[in-house]
Amino acid sequence: MVFRKDKLLRFAHCDPAGIGFYPRYVELINEVVEDWCAQGIGVSFHELHATHGLGIPAVRLEIDYLAPSLYGDVLNFSLGIERIGRSSMTLDVRARAGESERLRARLTVVLAALKDLRAVPIEGEWRARFTPYLMGTGSCAAPA
Amino acid sequence: MVFRKDKLLRFAHCDPAGIGFYPRYVELINEVVEDWCAQGIGVSFHELHATHGLGIPAVRLEIDYLAPSLYGDVLNFSLGIERIGRSSMTLDVRARAGESERLRARLTVVLAALKDLRAVPIEGEWRARFTPYLMGTGSCAAPA
Amino acid sequence: MVFRKDKLLRFAHCDPAGIGFYPRYVELINEVVEDWCAQGIGVSFHELHATHGLGIPAVRLEIDYLAPSLYGDVLNFSLGIERIGRSSMTLDVRARAGESERLRARLTVVLAALKDLRAVPIEGEWRARFTPYLMGTGSCAAPA
Amino acid sequence: MVFRKDKLLRFAHCDPAGIGFYPRYVELINEVVEDWCAQGIGVSFHELHATHGLGIPAVRLEIDYLAPSLYGDVLNFSLGIERIGRSSMTLDVRARAGESERLRARLTVVLAALKDLRAVPIEGEWRARFTPYLMGTGSCAAPA
Repeated sequence: MVFRKDKLLRFAHCDPAGIGFYPRYVELINEVVEDWCAQGIGVSFHELHATHGLGIPAVRLEIDYLAPSLYGDVLNFSLGIERIGRSSMTLDVRARAGESERLRARLTVVLAALKDLRAVPIEGEWRARFTPYLMGTGSCAAPA
Repeated sequence: MVFRKDKLLRFAHCDPAGIGFYPRYVELINEVVEDWCAQGIGVSFHELHATHGLGIPAVRLEIDYLAPSLYGDVLNFSLGIERIGRSSMTLDVRARAGESERLRARLTVVLAALKDLRAVPIEGEWRARFTPYLMGTGSCAAPA
Repeated sequence: MVFRKDKLLRFAHCDPAGIGFYPRYVELINEVVEDWCAQGIGVSFHELHATHGLGIPAVRLEIDYLAPSLYGDVLNFSLGIERIGRSSMTLDVRARAGESERLRARLTVVLAALKDLRAVPIEGEWRARFTPYLMGTGSCAAPA
Repeated sequence: MVFRKDKLLRFAHCDPAGIGFYPRYVELINEVVEDWCAQGIGVSFHELHATHGLGIPAVRLEIDYLAPSLYGDVLNFSLGIERIGRSSMTLDVRARAGESERLRARLTVVLAALKDLRAVPIEGEWRARFTPYLMGTGSCAAPA
């Protein structure tokens, strides 16, 4: 299963060259992850933190900026899970505008206890919630 | 040669967990690149754009977030060049606080004409300006 | 007429105290203005700039932060026009969450030519587009 | 006494029109307040929060954007206190670049306990620390 979300590239996301400024895409990627948690996984960031005492800090991020975007462009984001490990997982986040692919990102996050930022195993209910977004090998499940 | 710059991790860089928020480090990395251009290379972003009609859009970014930082931490950034290609180069940007390494990033940028965002060869004066920051293989030039 | 838009207060809008960080509300206010232009006035920021050569730079902003908000709160924004002058206008932007009013802002913008940032009279078609959002005195048109 | 701090207006602060984007100046103002606390008052935001359990949330902000700035401009900020009340105070923050005044802001903050965001009287040591920055009436102490 792939989570999909459209995001408007706004004036505030763009730089004096008039195109999306590369650090701002990381904020958009985080918005997509936040929306996926709330709407896809069913646990908002606030619940994750306040109710469960958990967070998902980033440990690694890779982004390929494939083509520039202009403000006013609607970016069609997709999010799937590339890999679920013991307590970390790698998210595959992509954005396109129509036929034009704009970025591909891989974001590795760790399930961690907020009180000491220690890794927590992704087990039971959590693994069950995340697993449907695991991208199949050789399947049609690839985002984009 | 390695460019070094200290940056205060500010309140505004931190999230409700009280630690540096991962998209904001990308803004700090860009600040270091901006400072390096102005103070290391000797051409500010504004001159690069307004006088030379050139920009250095990002095409790829990799970051390893090695350890969390708190606001009030002073991050000691270093920047060297890992590779200079025909019209792109990969910057190696790292941050530590005292003995603790906090992040490592590789940012690939392209020298491009602002008018059409087409790649421009890194030649002549530009290559001469950048080359001193090229990190030697097996040398002591590694940032950090 | 009042333009209304809901905005999620996100993790990224909040500070280490866990509440909305005051500079970030200004970005949300700008998002509401951007949405109003595109969806209310019918001219996106991009069209305003690229097609008409016009912008609406801010000359004055006043915000009362009435009560703190937490991430996950949905803020119900409203926007009306308090005053249309010769080439400037003052927007009245408010946000509430349920019964709780969170902020009130007055933003004065100027219609300006992008090429030299000189003020342009709000006339003809532009005045006709903006006027329906003018808040009546003593009417029920007040935002909120 | 007036606290002074220079800030570079960066590429990241500017919009597609190439000038400082009005919400970003609020972030710069907050940086100046943060620097003033650490370097002027002698208590960093982190100490204020972690050691004293106090914060200074904003309750009102007024900004006049007097003239546009370009990236690369160095803004000379000044900060004084216009008024110290029972538990709130109004800061007067201004920025100029050379002879050109760029913005004037008044920011009202409240001294508050972080645990419940309740106002705390500005007394004793705190009043003593803030009072030197109180701007005299009719004196030469005005920032700028």
